[in-house]
Amino acid sequence: TKKFVLNDHPHRRFNPLKNQWVLVSPHRAKRPWQGQQEALVQDEKPSYDPTCYLCPGNKRITGEVNPNYTEPFVFKNDFSALLPDTPAPDSNRDPLFKISHTQGESRVICFSPDHSKTLPLLTPAEIEKVIQTWQAQAMELSQRYEWVQIFENKGEMMGCSNPHPHGQIWASNFLPNEIATADQCQADYFKQYGSPLLIDYAQRELEKRERIVAETEDWIAVVPYWASWPFETLLLPKSKHFTQITQLNQAEREDLALALKKLTTRYDNLFNISFPYSMGFHFAPFNQQDNSHWQLHAHFYPPLLRSATVRKFMVGYEMMAETQRDLTPEQAAERLLAVSDEIHYKNNK
Amino acid sequence: TKKFVLNDHPHRRFNPLKNQWVLVSPHRAKRPWQGQQEALVQDEKPSYDPTCYLCPGNKRITGEVNPNYTEPFVFKNDFSALLPDTPAPDSNRDPLFKISHTQGESRVICFSPDHSKTLPLLTPAEIEKVIQTWQAQAMELSQRYEWVQIFENKGEMMGCSNPHPHGQIWASNFLPNEIATADQCQADYFKQYGSPLLIDYAQRELEKRERIVAETEDWIAVVPYWASWPFETLLLPKSKHFTQITQLNQAEREDLALALKKLTTRYDNLFNISFPYSMGFHFAPFNQQDNSHWQLHAHFYPPLLRSATVRKFMVGYEMMAETQRDLTPEQAAERLLAVSDEIHYKNNK
Ligand SMILES: O=P(O)(O)O[C@H]1O[C@H](CO)[C@@H](O)[C@H](O)[C@H]1O
Ligand SMILES: O=P(O)(O)O[C@H]1O[C@H](CO)[C@@H](O)[C@H](O)[C@H]1O
Repeated sequence: TKKFVLNDHPHRRFNPLKNQWVLVSPHRAKRPWQGQQEALVQDEKPSYDPTCYLCPGNKRITGEVNPNYTEPFVFKNDFSALLPDTPAPDSNRDPLFKISHTQGESRVICFSPDHSKTLPLLTPAEIEKVIQTWQAQAMELSQRYEWVQIFENKGEMMGCSNPHPHGQIWASNFLPNEIATADQCQADYFKQYGSPLLIDYAQRELEKRERIVAETEDWIAVVPYWASWPFETLLLPKSKHFTQITQLNQAEREDLALALKKLTTRYDNLFNISFPYSMGFHFAPFNQQDNSHWQLHAHFYPPLLRSATVRKFMVGYEMMAETQRDLTPEQAAERLLAVSDEIHYKNNK
Repeated sequence: TKKFVLNDHPHRRFNPLKNQWVLVSPHRAKRPWQGQQEALVQDEKPSYDPTCYLCPGNKRITGEVNPNYTEPFVFKNDFSALLPDTPAPDSNRDPLFKISHTQGESRVICFSPDHSKTLPLLTPAEIEKVIQTWQAQAMELSQRYEWVQIFENKGEMMGCSNPHPHGQIWASNFLPNEIATADQCQADYFKQYGSPLLIDYAQRELEKRERIVAETEDWIAVVPYWASWPFETLLLPKSKHFTQITQLNQAEREDLALALKKLTTRYDNLFNISFPYSMGFHFAPFNQQDNSHWQLHAHFYPPLLRSATVRKFMVGYEMMAETQRDLTPEQAAERLLAVSDEIHYKNNK
């Protein structure tokens, strides 16, 4: 009888933050790729682009003019998906036609006035200012809303329509699906094991050291055991317990800034391109009494699989049945570890 | 105070098959699009392509030669994600590192020998043969496996690497996430309301007639009230109760073939292109005693949003928080109804 080999044989792994399985088919990475190739996006950008509606001093579609900002700049999204003053729909008792009253706000956060930058090209001090802005936004919006989703879509492949370094902040009067699930999963684990899921997990990853791809004093980034996307990572505290992003002090922000810089530098160095991804923070719901099961963390979901131009498609089987990946998380971690987390390819020419 | 207007105001709707909410932001469709444009794929294909590894008589990468098939042709996927003889991993009691033994088979089904065709360009009789093949596959593989996922990825945008009309069949020794969820949701509804969820739903859609985009004697296709993808549809029986795809008789297969032809013709006519999507069938798990809560149905998840070249990106907010759509399902149904479900744009030149 054959022996099971993790990096060769198909298997399923369990995502305890989603209560879902992932199908891992490492041998699939060997198949030749004849499908769609992504366009390589031009990598050289000017520091100021007169046609960019996010650059300082430029006019936006609403006619508003951006200030000459020098630090992170936040403004109301001109095409907000959520609006603060939406009236309530008529109530409806049919369980198959459930509709709910939705209010919120969508904002854009420019990370830097410099059009040519991205997170890994900012200094740790500049990234620290971004974190401080995220904190201030979470603080302010949590007064009025149930949830504040902080995220970044990076790269055309991730639906990002402007290369100026920026992210988004969507606040809502409801707890979105993904947060509700993460809350439930962490609560169930806490009830059963008496400690926060992600504190136990970080500890075990630190013991195993098989999937860690970035490390600072307080933080690690791992390709989680249950990663869906080929080079997905989970950024989480080693042992400090933060239920909210607002809890980080100056020194802790500086350390998180360093972790973000290291991780995103590694990402860019993997294929020597500005690496596309969606990232976002998850932390405890604001209006919940007991949040001891929660741990602040960030997810990075990058679409690329084989190269700068061949992405993973989460399609047929994934949509209808179950997420499937074509290399093991350990193989992904190994490839990320093979490139520098300090010297960015752009500064190495 | 303003009155709520469904096609103008943001709101959330509930998907009872997934137990999840969807954020609907109809006013977002007004924003200008400056992001990625998809390539228009060449639409004229020869009936036989000597370089296509799916055409009759051609050699595949394994060296095997396809027979000169004239009806749907099924063969083992040369890069199967699931394999029948995978050994079991060592068992492991850590709840954060759960792994499971996975066996299965992946097959490819060529819908037609004619390279230039797609489902809507086949005759109803030819589509009926495809359905018959799906049934035979489900019948055979259900003897050895817990689940058989029948699906089609259509178009480069959906990760499909060969334009020859074909789908896939993945059988597994486990019930994948999406089926487990659909099973649970339908069982919960049945317990509470005493009738199958999708029988109640079809009946109400037939009364309302606001979201039906294709109709035959036995079937309707609706843009479901809770659709995630812009032009997503749910194909379901009007009132007949089929728990398994294998239950359809000759006349019922012919009627489903007609429904598939009508729906996919409408899709192609929307933007006058071969419309990309992933589709798949959901039916009751094979090894479950009581399946009275189940109803056979198919999901179509098409990526396009605004035109043949502008897709919906399910990215940052969608990945981290909640699915969000930019037009209402009713608006999508209206646009689909505005084009023919009988005369395909290619036969109308
Ligand atoms: O099997 P194919 O066509 O090579 O691959 C395609 O379908 C699979 C099943 O949905 C996906 O996992 C792949 O990402 C996609 O490219
Ligand atoms: O808000 P943007 O950048 O215009 O749009 C992008 O991010 C949104 C939030 O993840 C998505 O809903 C859109 O599909 C995507 O194109």
